[in-house]
Amino acid sequence: MGSQPPQEPENGFPTSIKPFEPEQFRRHAHLVVDFIVDYYKNIENYPVRSQVEPGYLRKRTPDTAPNGPETMEDILRDIRTDVIPGLTHWQSPNFYGYFPSNMSTAGFLGEMLCTAFNTPGFNWITSPASTELENIVMDWIGKMLQLPIEFLFSGGGGGVMQGTTCEAILCTVVAARDKMLQKIGLENIVKLVVYASDQTHSAFQKASQIAGIRRENFRAVGTTAGNAFSMTPDGLRAAIEADIRAGLVPLFLCPTVGTTSSTAVDPLGPLCDVAKEYEIEDGLVQFQPSQMVLHHHGACCLWLKEPGSLNDALSTNPEYLRNKASESKSVVDYKDWQICLNRRFRSLKLWLVLRTYGVANMQNFLRRHVGMAKEFEGFVRKDTRFEVVVPRNFSTIVFRVSPVGTGDEGANELTAKLLESVNESGKVFMTHAVVGGVYVIRVAIGATLTEDRHVNLAWDVVQEHANRMLI
Amino acid sequence: MGSQPPQEPENGFPTSIKPFEPEQFRRHAHLVVDFIVDYYKNIENYPVRSQVEPGYLRKRTPDTAPNGPETMEDILRDIRTDVIPGLTHWQSPNFYGYFPSNMSTAGFLGEMLCTAFNTPGFNWITSPASTELENIVMDWIGKMLQLPIEFLFSGGGGGVMQGTTCEAILCTVVAARDKMLQKIGLENIVKLVVYASDQTHSAFQKASQIAGIRRENFRAVGTTAGNAFSMTPDGLRAAIEADIRAGLVPLFLCPTVGTTSSTAVDPLGPLCDVAKEYEIEDGLVQFQPSQMVLHHHGACCLWLKEPGSLNDALSTNPEYLRNKASESKSVVDYKDWQICLNRRFRSLKLWLVLRTYGVANMQNFLRRHVGMAKEFEGFVRKDTRFEVVVPRNFSTIVFRVSPVGTGDEGANELTAKLLESVNESGKVFMTHAVVGGVYVIRVAIGATLTEDRHVNLAWDVVQEHANRMLI
Repeated sequence: MGSQPPQEPENGFPTSIKPFEPEQFRRHAHLVVDFIVDYYKNIENYPVRSQVEPGYLRKRTPDTAPNGPETMEDILRDIRTDVIPGLTHWQSPNFYGYFPSNMSTAGFLGEMLCTAFNTPGFNWITSPASTELENIVMDWIGKMLQLPIEFLFSGGGGGVMQGTTCEAILCTVVAARDKMLQKIGLENIVKLVVYASDQTHSAFQKASQIAGIRRENFRAVGTTAGNAFSMTPDGLRAAIEADIRAGLVPLFLCPTVGTTSSTAVDPLGPLCDVAKEYEIEDGLVQFQPSQMVLHHHGACCLWLKEPGSLNDALSTNPEYLRNKASESKSVVDYKDWQICLNRRFRSLKLWLVLRTYGVANMQNFLRRHVGMAKEFEGFVRKDTRFEVVVPRNFSTIVFRVSPVGTGDEGANELTAKLLESVNESGKVFMTHAVVGGVYVIRVAIGATLTEDRHVNLAWDVVQEHANRMLI
Repeated sequence: MGSQPPQEPENGFPTSIKPFEPEQFRRHAHLVVDFIVDYYKNIENYPVRSQVEPGYLRKRTPDTAPNGPETMEDILRDIRTDVIPGLTHWQSPNFYGYFPSNMSTAGFLGEMLCTAFNTPGFNWITSPASTELENIVMDWIGKMLQLPIEFLFSGGGGGVMQGTTCEAILCTVVAARDKMLQKIGLENIVKLVVYASDQTHSAFQKASQIAGIRRENFRAVGTTAGNAFSMTPDGLRAAIEADIRAGLVPLFLCPTVGTTSSTAVDPLGPLCDVAKEYEIEDGLVQFQPSQMVLHHHGACCLWLKEPGSLNDALSTNPEYLRNKASESKSVVDYKDWQICLNRRFRSLKLWLVLRTYGVANMQNFLRRHVGMAKEFEGFVRKDTRFEVVVPRNFSTIVFRVSPVGTGDEGANELTAKLLESVNESGKVFMTHAVVGGVYVIRVAIGATLTEDRHVNLAWDVVQEHANRMLI
């Protein structure tokens, strides 16, 4: 190719940059590793919830991308001054909001390797290791959770790592929908009904909407404090019966073990028995590793007894993706198990985490969070101005401030005010929920860095702000 | 909390592991950086397409996750011996399959920082910087692509980084569907028709299926070699007219600039004019940065003139996510622009890439790929045994082997055989397509590490294998 003269740069910049040069990569990556170590060493000094005002960043940022290159030092400086103040620090040991977004050294290293290989393993052939490791790891986790063997590859079922819970739910609802509509005709999509409790995460409602389920046919079975906000088989049955009488078609049930508001546990066995009676879709399990196994966010494990049902709904077979291995039917092509085509090598990360810590250590790690939650629950119970609104199931405490003589409405207002005051301090971050009309503060313990001293601090902060309010 | 005695470990492992300890993280992360540098330094020594047989990894891997911890050294050794042989090396300079999955140092560093902060920025308050930087970067890229200002935040529209193209299409189809069904009733979902060409990526068909569009109502407008496989306005109009006569409802048009098989370009302006005539949804633009701007895979940019239309279809507002900032309506909550709730801090990566290289260098980088593709096209044209089947538009060459006297069928067989032979060599990896009944080899130039010498090698390999076949 030496035959033609080198091109003149048209814009004053070199015609040939090297966006990946191994030694430069090494230097910059080491720099960023050290930057990250600094971030973590300082993390307790930052306000947990970002204190910036809407629009803060546009004021500090140029309107257009730079035409020429900038140095890594300049960019890292801007991350320090402009980005970090705009972060809500989910990795802070004082973060108790929502559910934790767990990180770990092993998860981080897995992410680095996944990024380095950067394989979009949509078909087996596009990176056999990516598919096969996912098969293996999903069986590993399935065994750890003691799933029935028919959910494992080794038992004729199979698992897949979805990007998010909503994606996983959407896949399964669409698969169930298409199976049913083949029987009753697409125009009857208006008759399909899906069931959950009024405590179920909004992701299920959203997935149902996307799948074209009529919004009025989303059945949120009512729960009560008397049942610790879990869905009762009788409640489910009554809803189904009413729908059938109205000429509707029950399609799908989504029970939850650990709801978002209060970690309520729906009774899986009895609910699935009811579902089976009415031939409602079951036979799948979902699990979000980020909240439990030090895996960062960005994955949801899904197991199915009949993975083929996903394939029927989600399979595409364009000519340009055809290949021998797929046609031999001896491999899994995960593109047909999910919404998207491209997929990250997520199993590499999970595999690294499982091997680095081992099952026993991970059990102990979770038990430690439960232990800390017990302690916090104890603190709340000892202070008569406070009330544990729903008994703790796992490592999330749900409480309110309700001094003697305060009605429910007054307690709701006080608790909301207390939460805002606590969060404004920047010392800890907690979020809220409303269960059975009661406004509660949720303390979800499980951030990787949280230790006993942080939980003590969290309670001190709550008390201190309550003291000021209740003078 | 010192009041209670330390718990006894129940399983012989410590009750309190530290899955993130900054100094240990630093050591291990540096180790992995060096591992990755080694991988890249060796990347040309690996067969580009993995040579393993289905099931290879299960034979080498235990059936259950280890109970105790393993060392990073052991794990990295297994990655070398068991994982790397099972990779198809998308980052190899000799990878020409599908479309490139571009990586870069800046993209990698962005990924590291995104992983370190690990913020699922679904609402503004969950990490303001994540949302605001995305607003800014989407305007930056929009300006680079010279989009009309009404697609930018600064012009009343707005952009969002979706996880994948399929997700982005699904969002927009669902938004269009719901808008139409509000007018004509959900039961009329059976009448909705979507339009693309027979060259459009299967992601559109899949997204339409997931949204509940009848499979028979997916209209793949025919293309021909005469129009370089682009969709013609007349073809589109004819399809729409026929559907209207049949009582159906045209919903959505998906034109493509750069189709998968042959990078055909649909004429956007004339097609959108036809669409507007029939009130078919337009007003959005999608762009996949991984294939163009050194961003790795895992993102698709989507701009809309009326982002509110996404909100109507995708918004959820559960109590536990309510917060002051959202209620002030002064912020973007990206959860309502996408399928999922959780989202990665993707804009950080894109921002790092844009700043590190600058617009001019990135333009030159793309031009260099086009230049290399021109060279390869020249090689093909000079050898009379070969044929460039569709004239090159960007940096993908579409060709076949068809020596004088070989009919189309014979050429199809020969070309398929040649491709398999080339890929089995492990020296390069290319994929195929079928356009207008013609089996072609696609050479998609654009891997970050590809230089002139690699393109020369690729042509040598193709010729060498053709020589052997054509003796």
